[in-house]
Amino acid sequence: MQPPPIALNFADLGRRAEAMLEELAAISAEPDRLMRLFLTPEHRRAADLVALWMREAGLEVFEDALGNVRGRIGEGPRLLVGSHIETVIDAGRYDGTFGVVAAILALDELRRAQALPKFGIELIAFGDEEASRFPTTLSTSAAVAGNFEEKTLALADAGGVTYAEALRAYGKDPVRIADAALKSGEASAYVELHIEQGPVLEAENQPLGIVTAMVGQTRLRIEVTGEASHAGTVPMDQRRDALAGAAEMTLLAERIGREAKGGLVATVGSIEAKPGAVNIVPGIVRFTLDLRAAEDAQRKAAIERFTREAQTIAERRRLEVAIALTHEIATTPCDQRLQDQLAAAVAAVGAKPVRLPSGAGHDGMSMVKLCPIAMLFVRCRGGVSHNPAEYASPADMGLAIAALVRFIENFRP
Amino acid sequence: MQPPPIALNFADLGRRAEAMLEELAAISAEPDRLMRLFLTPEHRRAADLVALWMREAGLEVFEDALGNVRGRIGEGPRLLVGSHIETVIDAGRYDGTFGVVAAILALDELRRAQALPKFGIELIAFGDEEASRFPTTLSTSAAVAGNFEEKTLALADAGGVTYAEALRAYGKDPVRIADAALKSGEASAYVELHIEQGPVLEAENQPLGIVTAMVGQTRLRIEVTGEASHAGTVPMDQRRDALAGAAEMTLLAERIGREAKGGLVATVGSIEAKPGAVNIVPGIVRFTLDLRAAEDAQRKAAIERFTREAQTIAERRRLEVAIALTHEIATTPCDQRLQDQLAAAVAAVGAKPVRLPSGAGHDGMSMVKLCPIAMLFVRCRGGVSHNPAEYASPADMGLAIAALVRFIENFRP
Repeated sequence: MQPPPIALNFADLGRRAEAMLEELAAISAEPDRLMRLFLTPEHRRAADLVALWMREAGLEVFEDALGNVRGRIGEGPRLLVGSHIETVIDAGRYDGTFGVVAAILALDELRRAQALPKFGIELIAFGDEEASRFPTTLSTSAAVAGNFEEKTLALADAGGVTYAEALRAYGKDPVRIADAALKSGEASAYVELHIEQGPVLEAENQPLGIVTAMVGQTRLRIEVTGEASHAGTVPMDQRRDALAGAAEMTLLAERIGREAKGGLVATVGSIEAKPGAVNIVPGIVRFTLDLRAAEDAQRKAAIERFTREAQTIAERRRLEVAIALTHEIATTPCDQRLQDQLAAAVAAVGAKPVRLPSGAGHDGMSMVKLCPIAMLFVRCRGGVSHNPAEYASPADMGLAIAALVRFIENFRP
Repeated sequence: MQPPPIALNFADLGRRAEAMLEELAAISAEPDRLMRLFLTPEHRRAADLVALWMREAGLEVFEDALGNVRGRIGEGPRLLVGSHIETVIDAGRYDGTFGVVAAILALDELRRAQALPKFGIELIAFGDEEASRFPTTLSTSAAVAGNFEEKTLALADAGGVTYAEALRAYGKDPVRIADAALKSGEASAYVELHIEQGPVLEAENQPLGIVTAMVGQTRLRIEVTGEASHAGTVPMDQRRDALAGAAEMTLLAERIGREAKGGLVATVGSIEAKPGAVNIVPGIVRFTLDLRAAEDAQRKAAIERFTREAQTIAERRRLEVAIALTHEIATTPCDQRLQDQLAAAVAAVGAKPVRLPSGAGHDGMSMVKLCPIAMLFVRCRGGVSHNPAEYASPADMGLAIAALVRFIENFRP
């Protein structure tokens, strides 16, 4: 028989979460915007603060070879809870960090009430989820799940620093990465709290949502090559303008997203024209394409269409186009039993257990190779994320943390 | 009565020019490509080499407050000859530098033959023609013509260094800029030799051309503002994607150029998307537009059309667009009498005096406010410039230098 549920003050939990998020948001590379990239001095400071909070919550804390901050308590196979503490450039303060703060507060509540379960629990603050420094993502959770890819170490950031060099500068030894992995018997489940980053819960007027699946993603890097030439002397019909070609491909990607049924999205997020002078027709343009869809087949069909039509655009313009796959991950369903346990916990705090897919990728996409996974979403204003305007109310956050406490109290692996 | 023309070895002049251009091309910020921006250490080294050559050619050399290298000989109103010695990024070795080298060799030939004219001659190696460092162009020749704009001093390069700071770091005093100016009575004409940077002379199978006019130019900086949002969670129809809007405007600019009769050209040369991450819909995009046409009215009509239709694109996409004028210069006709004197000089070396407009801007566009101007073009391979593949043959260069000697021998202000 379960012990009785502990008393919880939802509003107080929400206020505490907000205060902790504010403290973390002050840790940034720049004074005027939040930017805390993987393995930077800012990441170091945030990791130290999170480690301090974990220790105050009674956890035994260590850092693994990736810089993941990990806090453990209890015995036997562990329920893993967590999220990531690095951010995008010009970030909001909730994405990732809320999941870490929520887990700390939930365990702290259980500790204070002397109601910590006997089973093992491990809180993890990951470091590479946003892909904002290196052209990789989810590598730190992949390492915990025992699936770190060696080739990741050679990837370089915009300044030419490799992942391996950044790890060493952070005081970590790339040779020890395998030690970060849990064995499959050591983890019973991975559960993450996160802001929705979309407009569904707000539209349904509900604070919490249970994620059914994380949509599959493909990221491509496209290089268009034409010929750099003088902007004043080369007639329009003699140009091989790489940027005009890339512009046409950008609109092609948008059209593929708009014409799709059922939520495929396509995004060109970065672009660079070389040589990049006002008076030179660009000879080389590089841009990225991010494609996501709930159905893997739909996503693959979109990639095929983009590749085929981009080639047609290039040929018509006497350009060359090279398309490289930089990241691909299939649609990841969340565990049905864990979804139901989350739904019960949501109902226990008086909210409606809405179920919805996640358009964003999360560390669960790596962790699913280790153990069953689940996610609880919190409503955010306007569906806005990756932006300073990102906002979740203290009331909603308090409710989410309370639901996590109920989930842990009643967790059955 | 004129003294008899001096004996000239065209082939030898061409070979000497080629050797000097090779020596200058080795002065670069980077070992693998030619990049010699205004007021950089590379500019310093090139200026020192040019000053040395000018002294060896018998000129009295000084540097003005802009870093222009100036060599004088003779008395009375001066015939000005020259070009610029900074380059674009990943440049060829002929653009600008050939005009300086040609003037040095022409004066050196006249000195060796003891045939220097009695009238004043001033050779000028300018430093800001390519607009590759600061968002300005022709500022160094504007200063010599007495038209330097104070606001130029506040313009910053990509690293945030202002024009004034760069001048000081180069050892120059911005307060002394006015001293660089010539008075109108001090200059009788400005003549520049330059590679064509276009395909006309090659198509006509002629080595030399006399420029009739330099086409007018407008440069715009366009900023498109939408809303940065998550690439996975925001549906396509709810996005305010600044990059998709900018892509449409880029194709609009291309279409305006293609649809124009009579040689209007439109170029988007640089683009930057913010925040610029693979998984974020861009919220702000900045790009440049360079528009040129032989007729000022045609260029102005193109700007009006672009402004109007870009606004329509922005409104349809719920974006904002701000268009700022960064540079504008009217079509500049070359002086008819000087054109005829150049034509006689070209005929004197056995070439056909082809007349053609210049699609590129040159320092003459500034110098015309001081004195009559003229330009002599040299054929270049494939019309290619602003590119390492830029090439003019030693034979054509030798012929051009010989024509300049004949022009000086017979110069009548």
